[in-house]
Amino acid sequence: MTPKHTLVSLANELGVSRQTVSNAINSPHRVKPETLERVRAAISEAGYRPSAAGRQLRTRRSMDLAMRLYPSTDGINGSILDRFLHSLTESAQLEGYRLTLFTADDDADEISEYEQLLDTADLDGFVLTNTHHADARTDWLLEREVPFVAFGRPWSARSDPFDAAHAWVDIDGGAGTAAATEMFLARGHRKVGFLGWPEGSGAGDDRRSGWRRAMAAGAAGTDFAALTVSVEDSVRNGVRGAEALVAQGATAIVCASDSLALGAAAAWRQLMPDAGEPAVVGFDDTPVAAAVGLSSVSQPIEAAAQHTVSLLTHQLTGYGQTEPEQHLLLKSELVHRRSDPFITRGEPVS
Amino acid sequence: MTPKHTLVSLANELGVSRQTVSNAINSPHRVKPETLERVRAAISEAGYRPSAAGRQLRTRRSMDLAMRLYPSTDGINGSILDRFLHSLTESAQLEGYRLTLFTADDDADEISEYEQLLDTADLDGFVLTNTHHADARTDWLLEREVPFVAFGRPWSARSDPFDAAHAWVDIDGGAGTAAATEMFLARGHRKVGFLGWPEGSGAGDDRRSGWRRAMAAGAAGTDFAALTVSVEDSVRNGVRGAEALVAQGATAIVCASDSLALGAAAAWRQLMPDAGEPAVVGFDDTPVAAAVGLSSVSQPIEAAAQHTVSLLTHQLTGYGQTEPEQHLLLKSELVHRRSDPFITRGEPVS
Repeated sequence: MTPKHTLVSLANELGVSRQTVSNAINSPHRVKPETLERVRAAISEAGYRPSAAGRQLRTRRSMDLAMRLYPSTDGINGSILDRFLHSLTESAQLEGYRLTLFTADDDADEISEYEQLLDTADLDGFVLTNTHHADARTDWLLEREVPFVAFGRPWSARSDPFDAAHAWVDIDGGAGTAAATEMFLARGHRKVGFLGWPEGSGAGDDRRSGWRRAMAAGAAGTDFAALTVSVEDSVRNGVRGAEALVAQGATAIVCASDSLALGAAAAWRQLMPDAGEPAVVGFDDTPVAAAVGLSSVSQPIEAAAQHTVSLLTHQLTGYGQTEPEQHLLLKSELVHRRSDPFITRGEPVS
Repeated sequence: MTPKHTLVSLANELGVSRQTVSNAINSPHRVKPETLERVRAAISEAGYRPSAAGRQLRTRRSMDLAMRLYPSTDGINGSILDRFLHSLTESAQLEGYRLTLFTADDDADEISEYEQLLDTADLDGFVLTNTHHADARTDWLLEREVPFVAFGRPWSARSDPFDAAHAWVDIDGGAGTAAATEMFLARGHRKVGFLGWPEGSGAGDDRRSGWRRAMAAGAAGTDFAALTVSVEDSVRNGVRGAEALVAQGATAIVCASDSLALGAAAAWRQLMPDAGEPAVVGFDDTPVAAAVGLSSVSQPIEAAAQHTVSLLTHQLTGYGQTEPEQHLLLKSELVHRRSDPFITRGEPVS
């Protein structure tokens, strides 16, 4: 048996599952005695040394997880990933794991960080964020059988994310933008615009699709092209995007981010100073949205972080325990704010 | 020589500095040949094994730094430490170090995390934040000669922070609140109030002292007690604190945080709807301050993070290089905002 043999090839040779081989090495009490004997015999016959055969066979764990830290952007939208980071660190520590951070320029750079971390720092597993189309990272990790969980579903037009070969947790952003759109429709608006990001970003397209779905169901004959503006994320682009949408006749705007919504609300107040509260909804329910009294779609980020840790600890040590949901899409929720904008925390709209 | 011998005891026996012993083991080319010979002879004579004698003698580094992550609070003030975390991770990575995060309930718990991390995870050094009076962490680390840098000066009434035995970086908050106070005085205000935290927090007392200094110099006869309100940090307490200060005759308010200032500005608008822009200045220049057009004191957090990394890498590997400033107090800066509150980034007031 060469060092290139992995846990999977050993399992295939034996006709048992990968988990069974892992258990035979790491948690023999979890394996039926007769199976244990077979696996051990095969390992011994092959001169198999766990330490040379792949990380998943180690018995000593570093109790260390790793995640790439993205640069702060405008401090508004970035705060959602900082909240994830806090929750992840806290949830991981409850299970005895610490979190190591690294930075990277792109996917390729992130992958070479994985390599280095696996080589030198003895990492147990990874958490991926900002999943996107043609994400090279998941294939790389799957091939090497490195434990990991993605925060963000796999974005591929061709396959169902619920059939993915790896574990992921995500939040259903489309449900939140649909709820925001339905709220405006229920109040009599017919021309609800969507202010989002250029097509191609998974999360951005998901948020746009929620608006589109709600408009198709509730406002027959909508000219979708006329009521959509796509811009890069920033407060200033929110101002310009809202001006364009209002010029197209929009009477309310659902936004893909709080940065865009903040700009949209400012434009709204300038264009229609006497119109009262801007009919604008943001996304992420950031502290900025709370501070300015902006309605926004809230993500259950703490639950996402907790489930991420459950999935990872199960991959690392939990065979035999109840398996957590491998693909979990959590609900987002519209938080509606009015009155006293500077101190209202907002309440979920049922 | 017992395993209890440390680098320091070895240095004392030889009558040379700790750095010289470390260099003799880790970077022999940095030591004069005759000294090198003496140290090596002593080491050999004592049967000294670096691996058993303390972390500072290791030649293999884990290239890993660690920092405690505090829980998010209201998402406003917490953002300043998240900015520090981003900058620290980026600066550390440029030097080849990664950052490991852990959580703790208090000082004692943080210290037991240090112990665990040093034992099991082979950490190179620590970054401390939230330094405070009677901080047990610095003594613990100093005694064990563990490399560390504090972000935050040592707060002790009895000794000069610039005489501290350990390296620290901090930001002069008092200079920022003094500048804010002077700005109001220059505009004709005489009763500038200070809305801060209960006495005893180093950073909070520092911010209050800046206001007090400026008032003593610019508004003779000030009744300091009447113009100070101390509350726990929150937006709601900002509302109450501002109401109390206005009732005492304050015509402008300098705050210890943006959370307090956000509440103070809301109270101001309710108490004096026709008075125009609230005369309120916050602290930390958070995204929320930028979003609502609130003037605030800005901290050069990226420079602080960079210097923290310089100090640590110098402790770990840099003997012989130019020593960075061991105690560095960076300046804070007043960022003044007016007009178009929702999109103005603000400009430093010179």
